[in-house]
Amino acid sequence: MNIYLAGPDVFLSDAVEIGRQKVAICAAHGLTGLYPLDNAIDLTARDASRQIFCGNEAMMDAADAIIANLTPFRGAGADPGTVYELGYMAGRGKFCLAYSNDGAAYADRVSRFMEVTSEEGRLVDAQGLIVEDFGLVDNLMMIHALELRGCPLVTPAKMPIDVWHDLAAFEACVRMAAARLIAT
Amino acid sequence: MNIYLAGPDVFLSDAVEIGRQKVAICAAHGLTGLYPLDNAIDLTARDASRQIFCGNEAMMDAADAIIANLTPFRGAGADPGTVYELGYMAGRGKFCLAYSNDGAAYADRVSRFMEVTSEEGRLVDAQGLIVEDFGLVDNLMMIHALELRGCPLVTPAKMPIDVWHDLAAFEACVRMAAARLIAT
Repeated sequence: MNIYLAGPDVFLSDAVEIGRQKVAICAAHGLTGLYPLDNAIDLTARDASRQIFCGNEAMMDAADAIIANLTPFRGAGADPGTVYELGYMAGRGKFCLAYSNDGAAYADRVSRFMEVTSEEGRLVDAQGLIVEDFGLVDNLMMIHALELRGCPLVTPAKMPIDVWHDLAAFEACVRMAAARLIAT
Repeated sequence: MNIYLAGPDVFLSDAVEIGRQKVAICAAHGLTGLYPLDNAIDLTARDASRQIFCGNEAMMDAADAIIANLTPFRGAGADPGTVYELGYMAGRGKFCLAYSNDGAAYADRVSRFMEVTSEEGRLVDAQGLIVEDFGLVDNLMMIHALELRGCPLVTPAKMPIDVWHDLAAFEACVRMAAARLIAT
């Protein structure tokens, strides 16, 4: 059983090492982790970014499931590149899992970054855009895709000190994937 | 031909009116625009967010193509909810189009929000995460998905004063969709 390991982890300075750890956790549970950086890409090539896209897409097509790291990235919400991959896998009918190392409600998190006011019973951000306020950790499309097409989003009871290196929530996803995928 | 109209437009205070305008532009080009707010949802229902998800997913399944508004939303990148939908439609093999009313390169845009430094030839943000630097407008997964599974991202030559209400780039997408979808 192949699991595509999506996340902004690839942007960490120790991205290769994190990938090794994630693949090892998968192996310990009888699963094969596919990590995007395992694609051999020549970053100096003129079409490097397209090669990365094609490598990632081929890896997703070869996977039975995805575990996406939806920990907030440069703002209140998940990394759009990772979210694209979660959507793609949902569209392909693959089993969808994800975790976020920040379990706060999205609306609360937005207010860390900008002023949020209440207008006529709705939360509105500094630009006048409505803030989604269903008590969910991120945008409802990801949250319910997980609930209905895989397993509900995993969040830690307490936010870890190092959100980019704590893999407890990731391992919880691996355990759920193993239980579901190996059983079927 | 049905086009799913994805975007953070649904969070605008005049979201319904923007939807009407987008649907009218589609109609003028012989296409049927499907706008998420056309789903009748009781927002006071306990499972309102799940109803919205299911309504949006059914609309996407009924569409032949997507036009996604990837204009940066609460930060340097596109709205994750919209990006999920773009990924889902790509996964379903639908025709993918999108626009962004901010045509700046992603790496330049990140530096509007936080300090970006150059370390060993790589751009790094304030948290130590690498900033994708391929000269693309947003994350390479969306940019190349559009290029390879539909039409390249449309951006205006000059950023409009009102990025949330200017529909010129949207209309360019509709024209391309009409040319491709009606021809086939």
